[in-house]
Amino acid sequence: MDLSGFLEILGPKGMISDADDVQPWLTDWRKIFTGKAAAILAPASTEAVARTIALAAAKGIPLVPQGGNTSMVGGATPPADGRALILSLRRMNAIRTIDPGANLVVAEAGVVLTTLHEAALAAGRRFPLSLGAKGSATIGGLVSTNAGGTQVLRFGTMRKLVLGLEAVLPDGSVHKGLNALKKDNRGYDLTQLLIGAEGTLGVVTAASLRIVPDATDRAVAWVGLDSPETALRLLRDLEAKSGEAVESFEILPRRSLDLVVKHIPGTRAPLAGQHPWHVLIDFVVADGAQAALEVLLGAAIEAGLVRDATLAASHAQADGFWKIRESVAEAERSETRLVSHDISVAVDQMPAFMADAARVLQTEFPEVEVNSYGHLGDGNIHLHVLARPGTSTPDWHARVGKPVSRRVYDLVAAVDGSISAEHGIGQMKLDDLARLSDPGRIAMLRAIKGALDPQGIMNPGKLVP
Amino acid sequence: MDLSGFLEILGPKGMISDADDVQPWLTDWRKIFTGKAAAILAPASTEAVARTIALAAAKGIPLVPQGGNTSMVGGATPPADGRALILSLRRMNAIRTIDPGANLVVAEAGVVLTTLHEAALAAGRRFPLSLGAKGSATIGGLVSTNAGGTQVLRFGTMRKLVLGLEAVLPDGSVHKGLNALKKDNRGYDLTQLLIGAEGTLGVVTAASLRIVPDATDRAVAWVGLDSPETALRLLRDLEAKSGEAVESFEILPRRSLDLVVKHIPGTRAPLAGQHPWHVLIDFVVADGAQAALEVLLGAAIEAGLVRDATLAASHAQADGFWKIRESVAEAERSETRLVSHDISVAVDQMPAFMADAARVLQTEFPEVEVNSYGHLGDGNIHLHVLARPGTSTPDWHARVGKPVSRRVYDLVAAVDGSISAEHGIGQMKLDDLARLSDPGRIAMLRAIKGALDPQGIMNPGKLVP
Repeated sequence: MDLSGFLEILGPKGMISDADDVQPWLTDWRKIFTGKAAAILAPASTEAVARTIALAAAKGIPLVPQGGNTSMVGGATPPADGRALILSLRRMNAIRTIDPGANLVVAEAGVVLTTLHEAALAAGRRFPLSLGAKGSATIGGLVSTNAGGTQVLRFGTMRKLVLGLEAVLPDGSVHKGLNALKKDNRGYDLTQLLIGAEGTLGVVTAASLRIVPDATDRAVAWVGLDSPETALRLLRDLEAKSGEAVESFEILPRRSLDLVVKHIPGTRAPLAGQHPWHVLIDFVVADGAQAALEVLLGAAIEAGLVRDATLAASHAQADGFWKIRESVAEAERSETRLVSHDISVAVDQMPAFMADAARVLQTEFPEVEVNSYGHLGDGNIHLHVLARPGTSTPDWHARVGKPVSRRVYDLVAAVDGSISAEHGIGQMKLDDLARLSDPGRIAMLRAIKGALDPQGIMNPGKLVP
Repeated sequence: MDLSGFLEILGPKGMISDADDVQPWLTDWRKIFTGKAAAILAPASTEAVARTIALAAAKGIPLVPQGGNTSMVGGATPPADGRALILSLRRMNAIRTIDPGANLVVAEAGVVLTTLHEAALAAGRRFPLSLGAKGSATIGGLVSTNAGGTQVLRFGTMRKLVLGLEAVLPDGSVHKGLNALKKDNRGYDLTQLLIGAEGTLGVVTAASLRIVPDATDRAVAWVGLDSPETALRLLRDLEAKSGEAVESFEILPRRSLDLVVKHIPGTRAPLAGQHPWHVLIDFVVADGAQAALEVLLGAAIEAGLVRDATLAASHAQADGFWKIRESVAEAERSETRLVSHDISVAVDQMPAFMADAARVLQTEFPEVEVNSYGHLGDGNIHLHVLARPGTSTPDWHARVGKPVSRRVYDLVAAVDGSISAEHGIGQMKLDDLARLSDPGRIAMLRAIKGALDPQGIMNPGKLVP
């Protein structure tokens, strides 16, 4: 491959072509996909990104944008044929400005989420989006995948937190949209189009992001109850009585809790008795969170909505509750084989969907058990299908996992849900997207891709079937 | 023009071709543009819209979507050459579902905003977007222009309130996106692309919209203060101390108040003394709004931010305050000639921009005076330039108004602002958009338009230069 010219633009620090140094970035976070690339291009400025893309366009070399390489769907892994180069944004890691008065931060694409959290806190603010990969995931990737996480209930996904973008388009021109205008009706919104486009229409180089005051008081509760229906009624009840105080509302079944306690050292069940379902609640108000949530949950117990509940008495105890939630996938993987599905349906349909899907899957696939947990208030659960104890596991993924996933996505499509609530399409869900979308939707994806990236050089083989 | 086939699809009620009946819909709300059209097509169902558009596409006849015909920029007026037909959505006026539990309403494109307000209130909820034309403006138009209004500060523009869309695309296919998924990452977001597209990419037939609880207590205040800078500091102070309680924060200069009192019967100044600038505040909390706002404004007076303030003691008095704000444009037009500009800049830059723009314009155009008022908290003001008392007015628009507008948009572009904050581009601002945009931005608009409407039959001559 003709790499001449890139070194001149990027300098020796900005181009990695030693195979050993490139190697770690060729495989995705979940170790499902491995690609090939002759080099990693790592520009350190927007201008260098623009010149790099213009040169790649002139040479017809495709580029795969990469931030923290934490995609759950192989979205940042290059194609296997080696025709593309990796465009790493990790050197663009400056927080350009932070303005607590305007509740605004401008961060470059390579800023790691944890770094942004810390910078916001140092300014007396917080950036209200978090997820498991926060120590590696970068702003550019979070924008490009419209990331969600555990605070979407109150603050929305990245789409709601992005106030403006700077990006380099496939012809090397720069979209200068950082000036955060609260109102701007000048036609098709390129910022909105780039959010969630997985780098297929251009490369995000910086984002203007909303931050919020940190002057808050937080209470964390663990609740035992009968069913997802009851959990949703509890959420509606808390919302009606407290406005937007509920920031997180995560559901998990007894089986998830049991597996965490079995496999994850240092964890224990927060409640004494046994309950079919559990909910973890973050409740945030200006002042008096503990007392207010105690009153609300007390009333819910009296009303028969809740079987039992406990409030974390310390930060350490709150962290312990959250550790249970964040360890579910790891605990399940320690127990057996599984396939996971990041799906959404309309919020009010979710309890029925969870029950219906579990019944259908366990009937049609006697070797599996279904474990659904996650963001009930967003209509988004992680539907995990595990190998039932005692079943043969060596060829389980090919024999059971794949047909199960196909069936899960069929069930989701049947209720007009989404086969990707927060992880995106990448390369992993491309076939299912093609199979389950209206032809009109696929035509629209292809028309926009063809219009803005006619050479097809931006993140080839991702998102657009 | 060959109208055969439309009557078969639409029936006699659905096609208006009598010239007298068509006439009222050929001129825009502000009576600036007049077009020609052989007929108004008025389908009553999504299926009829789809069949109408498919037939128009087959015949190559362009369509101009129209709701309440309240565009401020000629966005719903057909071209003068008569090659297009009007596609009226007014017969699609059903509220399909309203679900207070899920805080969700599904309204067809032709539902008038006032009707939606009433339906939400009847369900114990409110739809938190309002504007002057609410008695005529329809949901389809509000979505297609990403409408704003006076509550954007807290609830955002239509873009934040739309949870899903049903639309008919230029080939007659139906985009079925009404199922309101809170998380959905399946590629380019067609719903986001249609919001603010002014009907150039397809026709919105229905929208899933967010409604909010109506269990609120409202206080309305009128405040006198020194300057826009002080006003913005007051807003930041109120926000820091009350969270999202400030729903409206409208600024107007003394001159606006004087003209309203002079020309609008039944209005009077809310405060006894004279103040350079005035702010109208809507403050909404669950309970105790009046007392809370009184404490906050008292502290602002003590801190020297505010010169004087009064709280509306009754609904009638609050309506009186709002009548002043809503009568500014009418009062100014009663006084003299004017040109108005709906512009935005970054919120923190607005006070300086208001002062700079007034100075530049009044220096370069000695015959004018500048009056800026509106949504300070959104960085969006209506910059009105009036003929100075005593200057010659008969040819004022051509001689002064046009060059003034050009200069205003130059000043806005110089600070990376928007020449259309909430009204859109339509046909009125097409030249200025072309003149003041990056070539890359215009190329992007054209590429997307060409990709999704290759025949160019949707709302020709609007938005895309």
